[in-house]
Amino acid sequence: MRNFDQFSITEAVLERVANAPDARTREISEALVRHLHNFIREVRPTQAEWEKGVAFLTDTGHMCTGTRQEFILLSDTLGVSMLVDAINHDHQTAVTESTVLGPFYVDGPPEVANGTDISGHLEGEPMFVSGSVATLDGTPLANAIVDVWHSDVDGYYDVQHEDDGLVARARLRTDDQGRFAFWSIKPAAYPIPHDGPVGKMLEAQGRHPWRPAHVHFMIEAPGHEKLVTHVFVAGDTYLDSDAVFGVKDSLIRDFIAHAPGTAPDGRAMDTPWCALTYDFKLNPVSAAASQAA
Amino acid sequence: MRNFDQFSITEAVLERVANAPDARTREISEALVRHLHNFIREVRPTQAEWEKGVAFLTDTGHMCTGTRQEFILLSDTLGVSMLVDAINHDHQTAVTESTVLGPFYVDGPPEVANGTDISGHLEGEPMFVSGSVATLDGTPLANAIVDVWHSDVDGYYDVQHEDDGLVARARLRTDDQGRFAFWSIKPAAYPIPHDGPVGKMLEAQGRHPWRPAHVHFMIEAPGHEKLVTHVFVAGDTYLDSDAVFGVKDSLIRDFIAHAPGTAPDGRAMDTPWCALTYDFKLNPVSAAASQAA
Ligand SMILES: [Fe+2]
Ligand SMILES: [Fe+2]
Repeated sequence: MRNFDQFSITEAVLERVANAPDARTREISEALVRHLHNFIREVRPTQAEWEKGVAFLTDTGHMCTGTRQEFILLSDTLGVSMLVDAINHDHQTAVTESTVLGPFYVDGPPEVANGTDISGHLEGEPMFVSGSVATLDGTPLANAIVDVWHSDVDGYYDVQHEDDGLVARARLRTDDQGRFAFWSIKPAAYPIPHDGPVGKMLEAQGRHPWRPAHVHFMIEAPGHEKLVTHVFVAGDTYLDSDAVFGVKDSLIRDFIAHAPGTAPDGRAMDTPWCALTYDFKLNPVSAAASQAA
Repeated sequence: MRNFDQFSITEAVLERVANAPDARTREISEALVRHLHNFIREVRPTQAEWEKGVAFLTDTGHMCTGTRQEFILLSDTLGVSMLVDAINHDHQTAVTESTVLGPFYVDGPPEVANGTDISGHLEGEPMFVSGSVATLDGTPLANAIVDVWHSDVDGYYDVQHEDDGLVARARLRTDDQGRFAFWSIKPAAYPIPHDGPVGKMLEAQGRHPWRPAHVHFMIEAPGHEKLVTHVFVAGDTYLDSDAVFGVKDSLIRDFIAHAPGTAPDGRAMDTPWCALTYDFKLNPVSAAASQAA
């Protein structure tokens, strides 16, 4: 166990991690060592490049705070998040498709009643969002948790501003027919936060940081797989070049423009507004899988 | 550029990074994406495992400070540092072998004259270290910079203690015959810092964190490759299970025990002491390569 060359070092590390008591830890460790060493052998980094790599990871870690998750941005922009999503949601059914969580979800968002306007102090085009949650065969799911969050007209999330509190973010519950509804403002396309190491990486890779406009949804109902997804605004400039590779055709909807008048919930609108409707279908899980999760 | 599955996502990310203006950035980015995606496709992480991975990298970043480099520890313990070292020092000559830098080097260590005792307030068995620096054919290199650093008898480096200042660490210069010498205390085997994420990883992998006792050397002379290496104490328990895979036979020396008496430099020793001698050979680089570095 000495005098390793650039091939025997891999065997040595693999032998070392072969003692992991937990089989899954062993499996992941072994695969990590093999793929990581193959990467290094292929690119043959200089010592200076290795130092740059260490500095990049360190800077990425230092950028992470309670409201900024730079490693999620890194995973998203390298396509890892969508790859993990694809592996875990390889449904061949009419279940609603999933996409990236992104770095802006906040645990335990403010609970509001259906019909609430969650836009707070934000200015923008009023948006009425309504829809339903059902199981695969179409049976409505009552009392499902529907978490929603989206950007403002400048493309920022509430948590990106200091001291503004939570806004354009809420937790709803479906009614006994599986329906939900809320008011907010229409979100804008936005660049992912690019004032940190991931932004520098995108620039070095000749890439833009933009995402097409979207509303995030996270939906949970007993006996069903949690759904993490977005609904994208049809016609957005960035639908074919999303910085995090999250767009799926089935998740694009017209945010239908309406002239001033009476909205479906009876609200009198004296400005133009838009309406988004989406009917979500969740994937039922077996009782056993449900307990394990 | 939408609707990616677990295979087409890789092609999509590769297309995106293909625009990197710098060819080397493009090469590294493409290799990173391919190997990273292959790793993910092999281990098929659950969403919860992905979250654990993000949390591990974030914790590792947050552990890094001016005196604690957790990502270097991660690179060292996964064998990446020694692999990069092997790739960059594939000498088929009598040049002194290199090994890991480790996380405890301090830029610009205290400059001292040959013969100085650098142990400061530390207790331990006195150690006289002497040696020489030469080019490959044996011609002595005068005025070479010889940086040395090592642990105390408890296995800690100066920078791991608060407020203790720099000790057991120095910069020497070789004399006109390429020789250097200093006094210190004999270092001990030590566990790498394992109170952080890397320590948790080692535990999960069923590994110990120990390194065999050693003295670090970093040697620089004009027209030569910088040498980063250790000299290990012969007979150490951990020579065959170094936590960072750094041991090479050519770097092991007897730290010869001496009874009280007169040391080679005339110092009167009233306790037992030990002596280490090592003659280093540096790799000449061409004038062109030297200017590029
Ligand atoms: Fe978003
Ligand atoms: Fe060390």
